[in-house]
Order: sequence, then C-alpha cells, then structure tokens
Amino acid sequence: MENKEEDVRLGANKFSERQPIGTAAQTQDKDYREPPAAALFDPDELASWSFYRAGIAEFIATFLFLYISIMTVMGVSKSDSKCSTVGIQGIAWAFGGMIFALVYCTAGISGGHINPAVTFGLFLARKLSLTRAFFYMVMQCLGAICGAGVVKGFQKHLYQSKGGGANVVNGGYTKGDGLGAEIVGTFVLVYTVFSATDAKRSARDSHVPILAPLPIGFAVFLVHLATIPITGTGINPARSLGAAIIYNQKPAWDDHWIFWVGPFIGAALAALYHQVVIRAIPFKSK
Amino acid sequence: MENKEEDVRLGANKFSERQPIGTAAQTQDKDYREPPAAALFDPDELASWSFYRAGIAEFIATFLFLYISIMTVMGVSKSDSKCSTVGIQGIAWAFGGMIFALVYCTAGISGGHINPAVTFGLFLARKLSLTRAFFYMVMQCLGAICGAGVVKGFQKHLYQSKGGGANVVNGGYTKGDGLGAEIVGTFVLVYTVFSATDAKRSARDSHVPILAPLPIGFAVFLVHLATIPITGTGINPARSLGAAIIYNQKPAWDDHWIFWVGPFIGAALAALYHQVVIRAIPFKSK
Amino acid sequence: MENKEEDVRLGANKFSERQPIGTAAQTQDKDYREPPAAALFDPDELASWSFYRAGIAEFIATFLFLYISIMTVMGVSKSDSKCSTVGIQGIAWAFGGMIFALVYCTAGISGGHINPAVTFGLFLARKLSLTRAFFYMVMQCLGAICGAGVVKGFQKHLYQSKGGGANVVNGGYTKGDGLGAEIVGTFVLVYTVFSATDAKRSARDSHVPILAPLPIGFAVFLVHLATIPITGTGINPARSLGAAIIYNQKPAWDDHWIFWVGPFIGAALAALYHQVVIRAIPFKSK
Amino acid sequence: MENKEEDVRLGANKFSERQPIGTAAQTQDKDYREPPAAALFDPDELASWSFYRAGIAEFIATFLFLYISIMTVMGVSKSDSKCSTVGIQGIAWAFGGMIFALVYCTAGISGGHINPAVTFGLFLARKLSLTRAFFYMVMQCLGAICGAGVVKGFQKHLYQSKGGGANVVNGGYTKGDGLGAEIVGTFVLVYTVFSATDAKRSARDSHVPILAPLPIGFAVFLVHLATIPITGTGINPARSLGAAIIYNQKPAWDDHWIFWVGPFIGAALAALYHQVVIRAIPFKSK
Repeated sequence: MENKEEDVRLGANKFSERQPIGTAAQTQDKDYREPPAAALFDPDELASWSFYRAGIAEFIATFLFLYISIMTVMGVSKSDSKCSTVGIQGIAWAFGGMIFALVYCTAGISGGHINPAVTFGLFLARKLSLTRAFFYMVMQCLGAICGAGVVKGFQKHLYQSKGGGANVVNGGYTKGDGLGAEIVGTFVLVYTVFSATDAKRSARDSHVPILAPLPIGFAVFLVHLATIPITGTGINPARSLGAAIIYNQKPAWDDHWIFWVGPFIGAALAALYHQVVIRAIPFKSK
Repeated sequence: MENKEEDVRLGANKFSERQPIGTAAQTQDKDYREPPAAALFDPDELASWSFYRAGIAEFIATFLFLYISIMTVMGVSKSDSKCSTVGIQGIAWAFGGMIFALVYCTAGISGGHINPAVTFGLFLARKLSLTRAFFYMVMQCLGAICGAGVVKGFQKHLYQSKGGGANVVNGGYTKGDGLGAEIVGTFVLVYTVFSATDAKRSARDSHVPILAPLPIGFAVFLVHLATIPITGTGINPARSLGAAIIYNQKPAWDDHWIFWVGPFIGAALAALYHQVVIRAIPFKSK
Repeated sequence: MENKEEDVRLGANKFSERQPIGTAAQTQDKDYREPPAAALFDPDELASWSFYRAGIAEFIATFLFLYISIMTVMGVSKSDSKCSTVGIQGIAWAFGGMIFALVYCTAGISGGHINPAVTFGLFLARKLSLTRAFFYMVMQCLGAICGAGVVKGFQKHLYQSKGGGANVVNGGYTKGDGLGAEIVGTFVLVYTVFSATDAKRSARDSHVPILAPLPIGFAVFLVHLATIPITGTGINPARSLGAAIIYNQKPAWDDHWIFWVGPFIGAALAALYHQVVIRAIPFKSK
Repeated sequence: MENKEEDVRLGANKFSERQPIGTAAQTQDKDYREPPAAALFDPDELASWSFYRAGIAEFIATFLFLYISIMTVMGVSKSDSKCSTVGIQGIAWAFGGMIFALVYCTAGISGGHINPAVTFGLFLARKLSLTRAFFYMVMQCLGAICGAGVVKGFQKHLYQSKGGGANVVNGGYTKGDGLGAEIVGTFVLVYTVFSATDAKRSARDSHVPILAPLPIGFAVFLVHLATIPITGTGINPARSLGAAIIYNQKPAWDDHWIFWVGPFIGAALAALYHQVVIRAIPFKSK
C-alpha cells in the first residue's frame, strides 16, 4: 500500500499520499492496476467481430454527429436574424450535446472516440493498437463525409453559399491564431477524455464510468463557445475533413492542414500531460 | 466466458473480446443475460393493475409533454421579437428537457416511452408485447391530444393564427426532405434509447440505470436544434397527431403522414442497427 | 414475492408483475418498504437540533433562491435590448438551476423542499409532520422575503419600476388562465419530486438518490420556459410572496391568491396521482 | 447509533434523528467519520510528488479556465449585435461549464479548487494545510495570468479596447453593491462545495462523489446569470487578478480589492455556516 503506484517519491518512502479534501476525498486506498499497453499490431483483433462492430459504430456515430451539427449550423446560417434561430450558442450545444449522447451510446462498443484526435491521443498512451487506431480514423472520416453529404443533399445551393459548416480561419485572425486555438481546444477535450478514463478514477468510481460522457460533451461545448468566432471550431479532424470535402472550396482547403495539425498537437500534449505529470509513468520504478 | 454472447466469432474461438479503452473500459467479464423476447400477446398482462397503471402513466406523461412544449412554442410564436422570448433554442430545451424529466419519472412505471416511435422500436426488438405496444400508443395519442387541447384553451385565436405547434414541412424544403429529417432524427433518438436500455450495459452499470433519461432527453433536444427549421421536428407521432387534431388545418393534415412514416422507419432502422450490428443477435449460435 | 406491494391484483394472484422493458428494466425483485406515515404532531421532534437546523437550511436556501433568480430577472428587465442580457431563457435557467443546486445542497439536511407547495404535497402524502410542514413554510417565506429585499436594496428605483419580479397575470390572459398554468406547472414539479423520492425507486437505485435534484431542477426550468409569458411563473408560493411583499404594489396583491391556490391544488393533485394511481395505496390489502 | 454525531441534542438523548422525507430520505444509519483536521504545516507533504502534481494541476486548470472563459467574453464583446454571438448567457455557460469540466478532471488530483476563495474556505474548515493552501493560491493566480495573457495574444488591440474580461463595478452600482454581490455569489459557490464534499454525504453516497462537479459548475453558472450586469462576476480572485494584470488599466485596479475581499468574506461565511449550523461542530461534545 505504501509505495503506491501514482506517488513518485521525491523523498522518503514512509510518506503516504495525502489528498487535499476537495470534491473527491480519497480516504480509502483502493487497489487499481494500470492496464497493460496495447500491442502495436494485434492480428487476433482482426478476427474478432467486436473489432469490426466498433468500426461500424464509429462510422455511424460520426455520421450522426456531422448530420445534426452541420444541419444546425445551416439552420442558423440561412436566417438573416440570428435571433430567430437557435443562435451560435445553439450550434455549440449541437456539437457538444451530440458528443455527450454519442459517447454515451458507443462507449461500450468502440470506446466512444468519434474523433481522430481522441483516437490519436489514446493511441499515444497505448490504449489501443495501431491497427485499431487507423481503422477508427478511416471509419470516422468516412462517417463525417457521409454526414456532411446528407446535409448538403437537403439544400445544395444554401450549403454552398453559406460555407457548408467548413472550418476556416476567420477574418481578423492569423493562421497562427487558428492553429493555437485548435491546439488548446483539443487539449481541453483530450485532457477531459484522459481524466474520465483514468484507471485510478475507474477503480474509485467503478460504478459510474457512465458519467464520463457528460464532462466530455461539455468540453466540446465549451471549446465551441470560445473559438467559433476564430475558426468555427474544429478540434476534430474528421469533422473538418467531412465538411471540407463536401463543401470543396479553396478557402476550406487552404486552411485545412490547421485542423489536422492543431488537434493532433493538442491531443499529443494532453497525452503527455496525463502520462507524465498526472500518472508520472516515466518515473515509476516498475 | 470465452464464447461470449456478443462476440460473434469471425475466426478462432480462442480470441477473447478486446475492448479498446475509451471511456468505458471493460476489463472484467460480467455476466449478463439478454432478457427473453416478450410474447406477442400475453393475456395475463391484461389482468394486472401494473399494465393499466403503465398506460395511465403514459397518458399523463404525454399530456404534460405536449402541454409544456406547445405552450413554449406559443410563447415564442406570439412575440414579434424572438429576443424577448426564450427563443428557438428554448423550444428545443422544452421538448428535450420534458423528455428527460418524464422518462425519469415514468421509467419505473411504464418504461418511459412517451412516444409511439419508441414503443414501436422496442416492440420490434420484442421488448414488450403487441398488446402493450398498442395500448401505449393509444394512450400516448390521447394524452397528446388533451395536452395540445389545453394549450389551445388558453388562447384560442392565437393558437390558430400561429400554427398551433403543428408539424409541417417548411417552405424551401421538399416532402422528401421532411421525411428524411424525420427518419434520421428518430434514428438518433431510438438509437440512444436502445443504447441506454441495452442488457449488456445494464449489467455493467447496474447501479446507474437512472442516468439513461439524460442522454435520451438530450437526443430529443439535439434533433430539435437541427430540424426545427425543416419540419418543426416531430420524431414523435403522438406529438404530431395531438397538435394536428387540435389545430385541424389543411397544411398540417397534408404533411401528417410524414410524421408517422418517418419516425416509424427511423425507429425500425435503429432497432435493426442495434439488434443486428451491435448485439449481432441473428448471428448468435445459441 | 408474489403479492407484491405495488401490484394491486385485478385478476388472479398468480400473475407476477411484468415491467415493459424501457429505460429502467426491472428484472430482479428488490425488497423495499414504504416508510410509515409521519405523525401529525411529533413533540420529540421539537427537541432535536436537526429539526431547527432543517428550518435554517430552508431559510438560507430560499433566501439564495430568490436572491439569484430575482437578480437575474432584474438584469434582464433593465436592459432595453433583451439580446444583450441572458434573456428570458436565462431567467428560466436561474430559477431551475438554483433549485437543482439548492436541492442538492439541502437534500440531506431538510429534504430540500425550498417551496411551500412541495412541502404541502409531501405533507399530504404523510412524509413529514404537520409541525414540520408549518415550520418549513414559515422559514421558506421568511427566506424569500429577505432574498427579494436584498435584490431591491441593490437598485431600489429600478426594482419598483420594473415589477420587482413579482408574479402577476399578464395582459391577454384571464385569471383562470393564470390559475390553470399554476396548477399544471406545480403538478409537473411535485410529480417529479414524488417520482424522485419514491420508496420503490429509492430501493432500486439506492446508490444514486443524489441524482434526483437534476430532474427536479429541470422541471422548474421547463415550467418557466412555458409559463413565463403567462404569469412570470410562480409554482412556489414563497417565491411569489417574497417578491410581492418587497414590491408591494396593487397588481401583485390583486393576483396573489392565484400563486397560493394554484400551487397547492397542483401539489395536491400530484400527491393524489402518485399515491392513488402510481402507488395504489388505497387499494392495498395490507 | 443514538447520540449520532450530527445531532446536537437540545433535549433528551433518547430522540433519534428524524429526517423529513424529501429527496434524500435517510433510512439507514450509515457510519461515517469526520476526517481529522489537516495540520497547519506538514513538512512531509513537501516531499511528496502528489503535492507538486496537485499544484501543477491547479495551474493548468486555472489556465484553461481563463483561456476558454475570457476568449468567450472577447467573442461576445467584439460583435455589435449580441444576437450573432453566444450571448451573455453563453458567457455564463463558459464560466460555469469550465468549472464543471475542470473540477471533474482535477478532483482526484488536487481536490479541484481552481479558485483561491474555494481554497480559503476549505482551509478555514481545516481540510488542507496552510502550506498547501498557499501553494494552490499561487499556482491558481499564475495559471490565470497565463490564460488571460494567451487570450490577449490573439487580438491585442481588441482585448484592450473591450475591457479584457476584467472585473469592474458597472455604472449604476456602488462599490458596496459590487462587494455585496461578490460576497453572496461566493457564498453560493462555496456553500455548494461544502455540501458536495461533506463527510456525511460522502459516506451516504459513497459511490457517486463524481457527481459533485455538476452542481458546483451550476453554482458558478447561476451566479454569473445574476451578477454579470453588476461586476462581470468575479467570485474567483485568481480569475479577477489574471484579467486585471493582463488588462492593466486603472478602472480594473481601482475596484480590484473588491474581488479579493468579497470572495474571501463569502467563503468564510459559507465555511462558518457549514461548520457551525450544518455540522454543528462547535457544539459537539466530542
């Protein structure tokens, strides 16, 4: 019990971890075990139905995510008076709320990523194999393209004239601003994902893993509140790619790299922060 | 333990299911059992008070659902400036929030359907008898008619002049658009319902079934954010029927079939997706 | 186990309760026991510190409830453009959100009523003594008066010129409309309270009673969305009384009876519905 | 069991605590133990990695809190029509939502304070050492400065011309009004924190401590709804200091004391209320 996994001793071993009593007092020592790192390639995985089912679930979830969120964006865009729409705040709710509902629905099937940046961050932490990470990303991008495509199908002309929900760096901001906003925004999201799926937390709250989707959805909502004026908010390369492909105009493609590089950097920083600072894995003796 | 129910083997049996670690890591194998399919007709059911109580609960819940949501619609409609009302987003909250609160209240009494499309989807998955499904749908429709009727009673003239909260396909959209929006929207809702009531999830999260109403309510909220501009959002035939009967004008009746056919197709697709892809029931050996 | 408490047999006893599988499947029979009815007068209670502590907690909670909600109303009222305020929807959030937070805070101390109508409904169901019910109502009203008084202290002139958050029946509605809106609105709230505190539910969800404040808060939010245009929404006599006393103008006093009679009728109907239909207590043999 | 810790007897000892049945009926006596008061100085603490990790977590959380919330404020400020932004309500969501998400993320690491007033209140209740309290406050202030600084980096000129999200007492209110608003607002927040982290509650709801972040976040949201028109809402000295230092204009500094004195008084009153009235610690015999 002394020599606890997460307490990298700076000094003497006799000091047992003291948790300041805030909202999650930790009075009992519950055992938990960091799950082993996933293999990079796991050929057996490819023979399991649950692997393909997970990919399909990611496809459907990302499809529904783009469908509802881009449809909401279109509804707001087409009205001259934003007052008679759900407004920019409604757009933020659409993105964040869908992530809440979809992570809830797919958590037990695929882990509920619905976002290549999340998959990338969890892959860096070795929570899933490279095979699976790649498969998820492909399915997410395909789902996003289909979702945006269906929205375009409803009102083709409007979709093209109103920007199609594609992410671009808005006037008054530099590309560096856009990149920065994507990095920090994705950090917020992936940091929340890591906090929610932490092995220590899972052990302590073993009965309520199900609560995790709510803060994750809120993280997406909050980043949208803050950065819609800057880039329309990506923090999800599949969402950006899907909208860009269906919109297919030069401005969207010019800035498109930002919505892959930014989220991946943000996710990597969040993985680094969680593994090095919070879990202190590199400093563990064992 | 190997040969787990939900793992339809594509290859060798020796492969134990690997869950990618997302938000709901599945490290222990918990046993669960798919409940048996409900009988189509169950005469005993008709002799139980809990059967009639469930019907009354569905009636009251659908009554309150229409009362609050259509009243909110009227409050927004009657004001020239949407800014001095709760706005379109407020309407979306009224629909989604009521479903959250009412599913919470009636879950233990009737299962918390409050929507013929949900009842239809769960019936297709054989979660309730045909008798019960039919009884629920009748009670839901009666409740909805009464709820809309009470709202009309408050301001008869206003109700008729402002559309009475009835669902119609709005200008600029085809009937096909409306049907499509209803299908995908109901899919989102019923998919969430299936995910929330899944036997596997129930086993794993046995202590928090109560959390299910929140994502279900959010699903309704989100679909409203996206499709209010298209059809006013039905995804609930009882809600559409109640408003149409009380409003009783030609435009509402012309499009009315859309708000039965769309939701029922969407619910059927969600049932299919959940039973075939997620639970893989047709492929199970036993 | 057969002859279950809540299954009032219409027919043969051999029929075990069948729960349609919606969101809260009920597969195991968990034992629970309806708590005994509280005594009308309980002299011992008056000698317990927890009794007075509960009253103080109700006072403080109702004080904070009025302070935050009426302050929000004032902030919206004083601005010419509702667009540059939190809006009417923000007012609804203030009322509902405070009930969520305060029920969460006081549930373990006083039961978290914060509303004479809730106290009245629970008293009718014999969940607390008459002494306690009366004491709570007095403390709630005192707290509400103080809360509204502090808001008036911030901007006396504005408070009086903008209606002081007092409940009145708005133009275009009859007093009967106002009364009806209060009755149904309070029914929604107290029905949610009864559903959340149901003994059967508590037994089943013994680990998550804490979730109850969220649907209760949402019920308040939703009723405000619907009926702010009609009466400003009371459904809480202490809130109406506090604002009326501090505002102290004829229109508020003329309609004031509506905000006591309406909520008390609504609460009584909810108690009746829950006890007679849902719990079927009068029909129980034992 | 009789002679329960929280029941300070006014009369005879034979009276067992009666809890009015509201939302959280308390039928079983569960044992719990008030944790011992933290030492003022705990030298061992300084040798534990978890101490420094907690400080880093507070830094990062406060950084992200200011980044997202002040960025949202800027997005709303820069637009002439608030209708085409997320609006003032969106600002309230940004502050409250970030506290929800960040308390969720950091609760198990640092206790999830993210606010010197919270740290101060918990210190007064002897929940953490003076060393730790001081360390947290320093890290929170540093994080806030960096967060506001990054927002300024995005649009320097706009940041300065639009007030930089700094807290000032708005026109039409006296400094006394501002101080009062900060005191009561912080009371609401810290009262919620105490209620959420109460030892008695933790014992009863041992499986759902994780739910605490939601009401805490809502408390912040609600106080913003009410007092943004008065002071822009501080209730968090680190947030006020960070914005003031980066904005660095006379009006912000003139009122700055209000945003330290107010929150600290509010937190002290909440600590007093919880310890004396709710827990009755001074009156306990043992």
